[in-house]
Amino acid sequence: MSFSETDLIEKQLGSTRLFEGKIINLRRDEVLLPNGKTATREVVEHPGAVAVIPRTKEGNVILVRQFRHPIGKIILEVPAGKLDPDEKPEACALRELAEETGFFANRLRKLTSMYTTPGFTNEVIHVYLAEDLEESDKQPDEDEFITSEVYSPEQIRQMIASGEICDAKSLVALCLAGI
Amino acid sequence: MSFSETDLIEKQLGSTRLFEGKIINLRRDEVLLPNGKTATREVVEHPGAVAVIPRTKEGNVILVRQFRHPIGKIILEVPAGKLDPDEKPEACALRELAEETGFFANRLRKLTSMYTTPGFTNEVIHVYLAEDLEESDKQPDEDEFITSEVYSPEQIRQMIASGEICDAKSLVALCLAGI
Repeated sequence: MSFSETDLIEKQLGSTRLFEGKIINLRRDEVLLPNGKTATREVVEHPGAVAVIPRTKEGNVILVRQFRHPIGKIILEVPAGKLDPDEKPEACALRELAEETGFFANRLRKLTSMYTTPGFTNEVIHVYLAEDLEESDKQPDEDEFITSEVYSPEQIRQMIASGEICDAKSLVALCLAGI
Repeated sequence: MSFSETDLIEKQLGSTRLFEGKIINLRRDEVLLPNGKTATREVVEHPGAVAVIPRTKEGNVILVRQFRHPIGKIILEVPAGKLDPDEKPEACALRELAEETGFFANRLRKLTSMYTTPGFTNEVIHVYLAEDLEESDKQPDEDEFITSEVYSPEQIRQMIASGEICDAKSLVALCLAGI
């Protein structure tokens, strides 16, 4: 590799807390650039999340449809959700899968961990493939409004090509699961 | 489909501006849930962005390595950047490609548009495949600290499998380009 870390790294000089929210916090940091100038960086702090691809024994995939207020649209996604405080990603994956689809997974395999948009947030999503599913008795959260739907790999590929599946974590999860 | 839109949609009741930044804004909205309860939604407003996969005539891919302050790490990504005001995504893709890699693309094909993390932001990234590359005389921004590196498809697949490529837009772009 042709780079030296010191050519790239920014050093933090200061930090101002701007907002503490229910889900995200916001701060503004001052940093020292590699050329000696200073710059500001707006950072959204997020607790991290999981995304799960539930695959049935027939090879189909369960997706969830929900309204996303920030974009003002109902979209199709893989089941997903935020980590609770001190919650392990695997436990979160099983919890969100049950809450959003009603299924428990006897087999859970990690596909990757990824940063959703590292230019302005530290959010990381841990992505799992869930197989050997069985119905769970978990009740969905009463304030979550979600429908779950089963699609074949061929239907999924068509919805990726058409742009109907337009959520980054879902695209990554489906690709890495080999759908 | 088994759902009714009214079972899912949240209606906005009010909105409070919390922060206006250089790159992002933050607001908190009050919404009416389908069950008649109210809830708050924290929304990060973002101008939108592009991501570009530059593919050489040998079939290799140019990636960029840069420090991302929110995660405190140097990571490998596809070239990408924010839309300037009133800038068309195609123009932004060519601009960012030139600024970050020094190449101009004679052929640009849109792969998809996607939401990076629609639970808390409206950020959309338009993803392009750039081919028929030639050297441009565009100079990089003096306050951008980026190195560009060429990888074969086999190297890329290894770095996806190992988790070294861990940026969502890059994973989506590489998957959709068939790398």
